Amino acid sequence: MPFDKLFEEQLDTLKAEGNYRYFADLTRQCGQHPRAKNHHDGETRDVTVWCSNDYLGMGQHPDVVEAMAETARACGTGAGGTRNISGTNHHHLLLERELADLHGKEAALLFTSGYVSNWAALSTLGSRLPNAVILSDALNHASMIEGIRHSRADKVIWKHNDPEDLDRKLARLPANTTKIVAFESVYSMDGDIAPIREIVEVAEKHGAMTYLDEVHAVGMYGPRGGGVAERDGLMDRITLIEGTLGKAFGVMGGYITGSAALCDFIRSFASGFIFTTALPPAVASAATVSIRHLKASEIERAQQRRQVARLRARLDAEGIPHVRNPSHIIPVMVKDPVKCRMLSDYLMDQFGIYVQPINYPTVPKGTERLRFTPGPNHTDADIDRLVEALSSLWRQCALARATA
Amino acid sequence: MPFDKLFEEQLDTLKAEGNYRYFADLTRQCGQHPRAKNHHDGETRDVTVWCSNDYLGMGQHPDVVEAMAETARACGTGAGGTRNISGTNHHHLLLERELADLHGKEAALLFTSGYVSNWAALSTLGSRLPNAVILSDALNHASMIEGIRHSRADKVIWKHNDPEDLDRKLARLPANTTKIVAFESVYSMDGDIAPIREIVEVAEKHGAMTYLDEVHAVGMYGPRGGGVAERDGLMDRITLIEGTLGKAFGVMGGYITGSAALCDFIRSFASGFIFTTALPPAVASAATVSIRHLKASEIERAQQRRQVARLRARLDAEGIPHVRNPSHIIPVMVKDPVKCRMLSDYLMDQFGIYVQPINYPTVPKGTERLRFTPGPNHTDADIDRLVEALSSLWRQCALARATA
Ligand SMILES: Cc1ncc(COP(=O)(O)O)c(C=O)c1O
Ligand SMILES: Cc1ncc(COP(=O)(O)O)c(C=O)c1O
Repeated sequence: MPFDKLFEEQLDTLKAEGNYRYFADLTRQCGQHPRAKNHHDGETRDVTVWCSNDYLGMGQHPDVVEAMAETARACGTGAGGTRNISGTNHHHLLLERELADLHGKEAALLFTSGYVSNWAALSTLGSRLPNAVILSDALNHASMIEGIRHSRADKVIWKHNDPEDLDRKLARLPANTTKIVAFESVYSMDGDIAPIREIVEVAEKHGAMTYLDEVHAVGMYGPRGGGVAERDGLMDRITLIEGTLGKAFGVMGGYITGSAALCDFIRSFASGFIFTTALPPAVASAATVSIRHLKASEIERAQQRRQVARLRARLDAEGIPHVRNPSHIIPVMVKDPVKCRMLSDYLMDQFGIYVQPINYPTVPKGTERLRFTPGPNHTDADIDRLVEALSSLWRQCALARATA
Repeated sequence: MPFDKLFEEQLDTLKAEGNYRYFADLTRQCGQHPRAKNHHDGETRDVTVWCSNDYLGMGQHPDVVEAMAETARACGTGAGGTRNISGTNHHHLLLERELADLHGKEAALLFTSGYVSNWAALSTLGSRLPNAVILSDALNHASMIEGIRHSRADKVIWKHNDPEDLDRKLARLPANTTKIVAFESVYSMDGDIAPIREIVEVAEKHGAMTYLDEVHAVGMYGPRGGGVAERDGLMDRITLIEGTLGKAFGVMGGYITGSAALCDFIRSFASGFIFTTALPPAVASAATVSIRHLKASEIERAQQRRQVARLRARLDAEGIPHVRNPSHIIPVMVKDPVKCRMLSDYLMDQFGIYVQPINYPTVPKGTERLRFTPGPNHTDADIDRLVEALSSLWRQCALARATA
């Protein structure tokens, strides 16, 4: 094709750096999570998935699956339009009510994904509020960064998880600005958790709004799965809480929650909300069932915490270095894209263990890693097998062990 | 809430203009399309939907519904990750193959929506190609406009559907620019169709890429539902064809098709593709079944064309003015947001006919309209009832009739 050279040049650079991506071709099998089929070179084999963001296996929970299947049979497969033009289905409203309740807010607003919810909400706030300045944590997710960029509002980056730096930067802003402090609770690649209370206090002191992404925390933290802000009793002090239906809730879609006026504002002005087909009713109803389940059930969270602790202890026992953090995410740093892929390939080929190498642009160059997300359905035997495999790799490749 | 005044001020302006939006709360009922339940003030009633973008009723086709239900039962509800990190399911690859075949291209790439596919593809092309200039039709969809804006590439707007203006504007660009001509086939609000052949010829003459949004045409035009470019035998001359799975295909999701290098380029660099949970396998498999069906079946398209022609003829007979165009979209111009809503409310209340008033920002202020989309499942009696209702409204409100 006439333009292919333009594309190939940049792809060749990626390949030369070791940053070109190969996707694993999987078939998830209901009831088997974390087991899945992996298709490769015309062959199919069973693998154990160690990097899923279906953190609690809710995507295969019988009630959630039935809700999707039943609602598809009752309502059909699609919403049939944008939310404004015939696409609002009663299941969307039920889900929005469930989400508002989850976060103790007046209202919620659904989007097609967490990415779109961040992008659309931040770009609308940043572009429409008078003299908006968005104060963005240095490690915020791409969807927030793109939303802020798109808004063309002034942007101030503060040091990751550093309320003092935020305080200094807020203090410098003129009084007539609308200040929005945007940050995450659980940072997905390092697994560290923001000091939400301190951040909220600094924001309140300066009259700033707070925008909190709980994508990797909803369903997982707090007595009802409302996220870290629920766990810490801070939900009512945060202006806007954003989340996803695609990770711990096991389905797809994103949302914001906040005051009725805030949600109505985003509903009325956000291009990314207005000009797109609504979520299928079957997706909304599956998500509703999943949220309700995790509001009432602690079993999945407790068992996940147990398996996370177990994997950490076993890694420590074998001297496999991993990043310490207070979350469910266990990063093993490799710091080289080629080695990272090699380890991943080896785990897959030799042990049927699937963990995707995480490389640029998901993490900065030089911080490539394997990122393990143990869930309640990983057995003790799965953990033992993983640690043995890593240990044999560390031996064979003469990788550095952690020293106590 | 402390910030509510900021939001309410702008909402009040919308309300004062008559541009505040009220969504109809519907329950779609499988097998009943275009009938749905409307929930209002605690009551529920049956209505006939006249503004659905499930143009052919495929969202309720038994095979499509079964595919979603069965795949949910087989694979669970969610993909479990981003495409790169454990979220690529075999159903995505089958769907991408189906889409590449539909448009006669080497490859295809899935997105969570048509909106995201336009936004992500155009922002990536515009920002990463050397000296990119995007030549955008004046009436392009919001998702394309936002993608172009986000790319920060130079943008040149050419007169709507005017290849001569495009020619002049291309001629002015320096030789060392990468030129991308972005346009749609069927424009959804006016229902007019682009002169694709002339546009492609102008683009070829200047060595420009062509980027065609067939969102309102896929499934509907061409012998296999490949869109207007298929109908006109032009698919192989267009660099990138973009479409949705959420309108005629009746599900949700978006895509691009093009050369393998082009799709790999977007796959590798587009933030909106990389950093988001993949579509549920059940959504992908329902879409695949829908596309396959419409590749082989002409019945739905033929019956739709018949009902579109029938509604037009009946409107003409009653002197209800509507915009003439060569597509399946029948706009009745009202040109006032308050009157437009009044007509819509009246149709709903008095006749159980649901057609959403289309107002700003979906169309420019002063061009408010009712937009009818007859489908193969609207009966002749449905059409008669609609025209009688409109006619009685025209009489009561002393609205102008069309003169022959
Ligand atoms: C912090 C964060 N926010 C938002 C998103 C986007 O959510 P979704 O996958 O629902 O698009 C992700 C990951 O995908 C994320 O890691
Ligand atoms: C021309 C056009 N392109 C793209 C889109 C977005 O597609 P989707 O609804 O799949 O997000 C729409 C409407 O929603 C549209 O009208």
